[in-house]
Amino acid sequence: MTQTPRIEFWFEFGSTYSYPAAMRIESLVEEHGVRVDWRVFLLGPIFKEIGWGDSPFNLYPAKGRYMWRDLERVCNVHGIPFSRPSAFPRNGLLASRIACRYSDEPWLPQFVKSVYTANFARDLEIAATETIKACLAGCVTDPGKIIEDAQSPPSKKALRARTEEARDRGIFGAPTFFLGGEMYWGNDRLETALNSVANA
Amino acid sequence: MTQTPRIEFWFEFGSTYSYPAAMRIESLVEEHGVRVDWRVFLLGPIFKEIGWGDSPFNLYPAKGRYMWRDLERVCNVHGIPFSRPSAFPRNGLLASRIACRYSDEPWLPQFVKSVYTANFARDLEIAATETIKACLAGCVTDPGKIIEDAQSPPSKKALRARTEEARDRGIFGAPTFFLGGEMYWGNDRLETALNSVANA
Repeated sequence: MTQTPRIEFWFEFGSTYSYPAAMRIESLVEEHGVRVDWRVFLLGPIFKEIGWGDSPFNLYPAKGRYMWRDLERVCNVHGIPFSRPSAFPRNGLLASRIACRYSDEPWLPQFVKSVYTANFARDLEIAATETIKACLAGCVTDPGKIIEDAQSPPSKKALRARTEEARDRGIFGAPTFFLGGEMYWGNDRLETALNSVANA
Repeated sequence: MTQTPRIEFWFEFGSTYSYPAAMRIESLVEEHGVRVDWRVFLLGPIFKEIGWGDSPFNLYPAKGRYMWRDLERVCNVHGIPFSRPSAFPRNGLLASRIACRYSDEPWLPQFVKSVYTANFARDLEIAATETIKACLAGCVTDPGKIIEDAQSPPSKKALRARTEEARDRGIFGAPTFFLGGEMYWGNDRLETALNSVANA
């Protein structure tokens, strides 16, 4: 019996190119007969360790200007709504604690996409509890309880451990994928990763 | 009468992802009915201005480790020979002065590919005049004269001006392409750029 191959999808809520990856991954994996493990993490602590106190897209303005135009083109090609956020990067800590604590819940993908859409299509402040509560509303019956649980000490600890795992496995940006013992970085490597299954 | 669309291909001899772009661009543009303007430049001065004294792939080791594996995979997919160079990045100053001074010569693409192959497939020191002479040997009758001309004050000045133009146009990495008023960064945006012609 062959096991269904799994792709690990490591994403960060502030990461621009994680947005199209999150919106695309479900239909792509279905085409390829692959299952997704959704793995949220924080890039901030990883960037800090290499000496960056902000997103490289803010630290290096030429790269940032290009990224916004490129992201707009990428979203256009895939029919994904996009509107440049008025604040960048937004703080996704609360959303990340939820997505880490409830990694394997069936409603998780819907919540993740809802947070990304809030940030990158609706220009909403995802650091605000009210925004996250609204994102949860379509997913669970008691958003308030989920938010409370996600801020408990074990939930905070779990996200710190997740972020340490990301760093230890060589992750330096998002989105990052693992499949078949290989690491792939960037939204435009999602197809590359999945094609490796067909070619294996 | 419709003019043949042109793509500007900005490359740097030390840049790893410029290598597969240089090896692929001629057949791709032929398929799309586009002509190439080969535009060598130096990344070093641009990196220095943003505070990098070395390649980001050396400054950020996790990123560097990933890049070497990714580049190997990219070259494999396209059937491009690849062997990780024992020195990185190599100094492409002499090769760049030649490629700038002789930008529009019919032998230029052959020379550029020969230098990239020397660096990224044959692990040869492209800073050595002998290597560059050998690369020129298949292209021109008098490599010695080309090398001499390329080191004249006007040739040096032309490369400095070219690099300033790159920076002024917002280039922050290589390869970079311009087509139809849009900028595209990275080997994997070459198809995106060319497809924009078909969709125009």
